[in-house]
Amino acid sequence: MSRIYFDNAATTPLDKEVLAAMLPYMTDQFGNPSSIYSYGRESRLAIENARKTVAKLLNVQPGEIFFTSGGTESNNTAVFSAIRDLGCEHIITSPIEHHAVLHTVEHFQQADKVSVGFIKILPNGHADLADLEAQLASSGRRTLVALMHANNEIGNLLDIEAVGELCQKYNAIFHSDCVQTVGHYPMDLKKCGVHFISAAGHKFHGPKGIGILYVASDIKIKPLIFGGGQERNMRAGTENLYGIVGFAKALEMAMANHDNDSSYIRSLKNYMIEQLRIHIPAVQFNGDPEGKSLYTVLSVRFPSTERSQLLLFSLDMNNICASGGSACSSGADMGSHVIKALRKGDDFVTVRFSFSKYNKTGEIDEVIVKLKELI
Amino acid sequence: MSRIYFDNAATTPLDKEVLAAMLPYMTDQFGNPSSIYSYGRESRLAIENARKTVAKLLNVQPGEIFFTSGGTESNNTAVFSAIRDLGCEHIITSPIEHHAVLHTVEHFQQADKVSVGFIKILPNGHADLADLEAQLASSGRRTLVALMHANNEIGNLLDIEAVGELCQKYNAIFHSDCVQTVGHYPMDLKKCGVHFISAAGHKFHGPKGIGILYVASDIKIKPLIFGGGQERNMRAGTENLYGIVGFAKALEMAMANHDNDSSYIRSLKNYMIEQLRIHIPAVQFNGDPEGKSLYTVLSVRFPSTERSQLLLFSLDMNNICASGGSACSSGADMGSHVIKALRKGDDFVTVRFSFSKYNKTGEIDEVIVKLKELI
Repeated sequence: MSRIYFDNAATTPLDKEVLAAMLPYMTDQFGNPSSIYSYGRESRLAIENARKTVAKLLNVQPGEIFFTSGGTESNNTAVFSAIRDLGCEHIITSPIEHHAVLHTVEHFQQADKVSVGFIKILPNGHADLADLEAQLASSGRRTLVALMHANNEIGNLLDIEAVGELCQKYNAIFHSDCVQTVGHYPMDLKKCGVHFISAAGHKFHGPKGIGILYVASDIKIKPLIFGGGQERNMRAGTENLYGIVGFAKALEMAMANHDNDSSYIRSLKNYMIEQLRIHIPAVQFNGDPEGKSLYTVLSVRFPSTERSQLLLFSLDMNNICASGGSACSSGADMGSHVIKALRKGDDFVTVRFSFSKYNKTGEIDEVIVKLKELI
Repeated sequence: MSRIYFDNAATTPLDKEVLAAMLPYMTDQFGNPSSIYSYGRESRLAIENARKTVAKLLNVQPGEIFFTSGGTESNNTAVFSAIRDLGCEHIITSPIEHHAVLHTVEHFQQADKVSVGFIKILPNGHADLADLEAQLASSGRRTLVALMHANNEIGNLLDIEAVGELCQKYNAIFHSDCVQTVGHYPMDLKKCGVHFISAAGHKFHGPKGIGILYVASDIKIKPLIFGGGQERNMRAGTENLYGIVGFAKALEMAMANHDNDSSYIRSLKNYMIEQLRIHIPAVQFNGDPEGKSLYTVLSVRFPSTERSQLLLFSLDMNNICASGGSACSSGADMGSHVIKALRKGDDFVTVRFSFSKYNKTGEIDEVIVKLKELI
C-alpha cells in the first residue's frame, strides 16, 4: 500500500514547478545578492522580483515584505520588536496560538518585560471577541494583540478584519500568525488592520527554511538579527536566494490556482466528514469544521479505547501519515496545548487529517476502511 | 569573454554533488522532521546523520552542533546568549570583525547591556594578543571575547588556540566567527578553547540559508528564536531539511579533498601575488598574505588614481567578479570598516580577489592583462 499523506498542515511537498524556478539559483546564478557585479545583480534582481510578486499578492508595498528563515523567526521578530521598539507593555493572545508565538510571549513574560492576558476560546474553538474587546478596553497600556489567522491544529479561522478594527479602536498593535492561511486564501492585508503577519513557504508547496514578515510601513522596528545591510537593514545574513525565489513562485502558483484547488480540497474534507459519520458514527470533531474553518484541516475525535490510543501508531504502520496535533506534538494528543485548552479531561483521541491538492478521494476511502479496522 | 569569478569569500557555487544530495529532500522525502510517521522519521534521520557528520569533522559531540539559518544568526545567538544567559557584562572584540558580530555588539552596547573594548590590530592585520591579555586582565567582570578565526576581507588568520588559552586563563567566554575557515581548514574545536563558533554552508560550496552554531556542552543557553522543540529546544522552526543535508555533504567533501584543494587554491593565490608584482609593481597587499592568511583570499592595494578608483566597476564591465571588501560593502572600499581600521587616509584602492577550486591559472593571467589595461 503506497503512502497516504494527510498531514499537509505540518508540511507540504515542494511543487515541481517551484523546484524548477529555484534550480537556476542553485547552479549557475549563485552570486551573493549584495555583490555589485553581474552575478550579484542577477541574484538581487531575483530577490526584488520575488518581493514584488509577494507584495502584490498580499496587496501591500514591496518595502513592507521582509524575507526571514521561516514563520517562527517572523513570529519572534514581531513579538520581540513590539516590546522592544514599539513600547508594548501588555500582550493579549490566546491559549491556542502556535508555540512560536506562545513560547516567545512566555519568555518575555518570565523576563518581566510584559504582562500577558489570554482571551477566552469558545467551545467551538473560536476566539471570544467580546472578551478581546473587554481586555483591550481595560488594558490601559500599549498593547500587542497576537492572534493567529487560522489555528494549525483544529483549523478555526479568525475574523481577522474584526480583530483589526478592535485593535485600531484601542490603538493596539496587531500581529497575526498567518502561516496556515497565506498561500491558502487570497489576502488583502490592507483590509485586515494588521501591523505584522508571518508566513512560511513550506505550508503551500514552497521550500522549507524561508518565510516572510510583513511590517506595515507606519511601524518602525529594529532587527532581531544584526549584521550586514540585507533586507534594507532589517534582517542581516546572506539571503536564502533559492528559498526566496521558491517562496514567491509557490505563492504565485497557489493564488493562480486558488479557486480550483480550494474547492477541490474542501470537497475532500467534506467527503471525509461525511464518510466518517457514516462509517464511524461515534466520531466527533474539534473546532468548527463546517463553519469558519480551514478547508485543509479536519481534526477528528475518536472515543478513547485501548485501540484508539494507539491510532496514530497504527495509522503509521499502515502507511497513513496524520498527526495528533501540530508536528511538534504529533506523537500524542496529550501533548497538544490546543486540545487541552478546548476540553479538559474528556475521553477522546484526536487525530488531525490535513489535505492538499495532491490528495485523492480514493485515499480517503482507504483511510476510512483502515480506521474502521483500527477503532 | 566568459565570467571570471574571484569572489569566493562572498559566496561559492553549490557543488553538483551537494545539490544531488539535497534533491531527494526537495522531492520525495519531504516530511516534517518533527512528525512521527515514516516521512517524518526519514527527515529526522537525515538531519541527525548530518549533525553527526558535522560533529565528527569538527571533533565535537553531535549535541554541541545546532543548525541555524546561517553565520549571521549564529553570531547573533552567541553574542546575545553570552550576555543574557552567561552573565557577560563586558565584550572584548576587534574593529575588524564581521558586521554580524560588530553590529550585534554595538546594539547591546547602545542598549547599555554591556561595555565593549576593542583590541589593537597590528599594521599587518593581526590581532595584538598582548593587548587582548592586558584587557582581559583588567576587565574585572565576566567577559565575552569575540574574535573571528579569519578575517573575510584581508584573510588574516587568528591564533585561535592561543586566544582560547588566554580566555581559559581569565575565565572568559570565547566566541569565534569561523565562517571563513570551517570547510577550508581541518578543525579540532576541542583544542581551540572555544565556547561558541559559527559557520555558513555557502562559503564552502554548500547551500545558502544554512549555518551552524557550536555551543560547548558545558555552556547552558536559551534560544534566540522560541517556538517548537526543534534542535533540542535550542532553535525553533521547521528545519531547513535540504539545507542541513547540503551543509553536511559540503563539509564532508571539503574535508575529504582538503589537501589537494587547499594546495591548489594556495598556488593560485601565490601565482597571483607573483604576477601582480611582476606586471604591476606598484601594488601592495593588505594583511599578511604570505604569512598567517587564508589561502583563499588576496586583498590587493592599487595606488589611487582616477582609473583605479573605477577599478571594480571596470572589472565588472570586463566580466571579472571581485569585491572591495565584504559583499556587504563591495561597492566601494570607502565603505570597508576593516580597511579603515588598518590604515586611515592612505591613497590606495583595495580589491579583494578570493579563489576556489573551480578557478584556473589562466583566469589569473586574463585578470592580470585586464588590470594592466585598467590601472
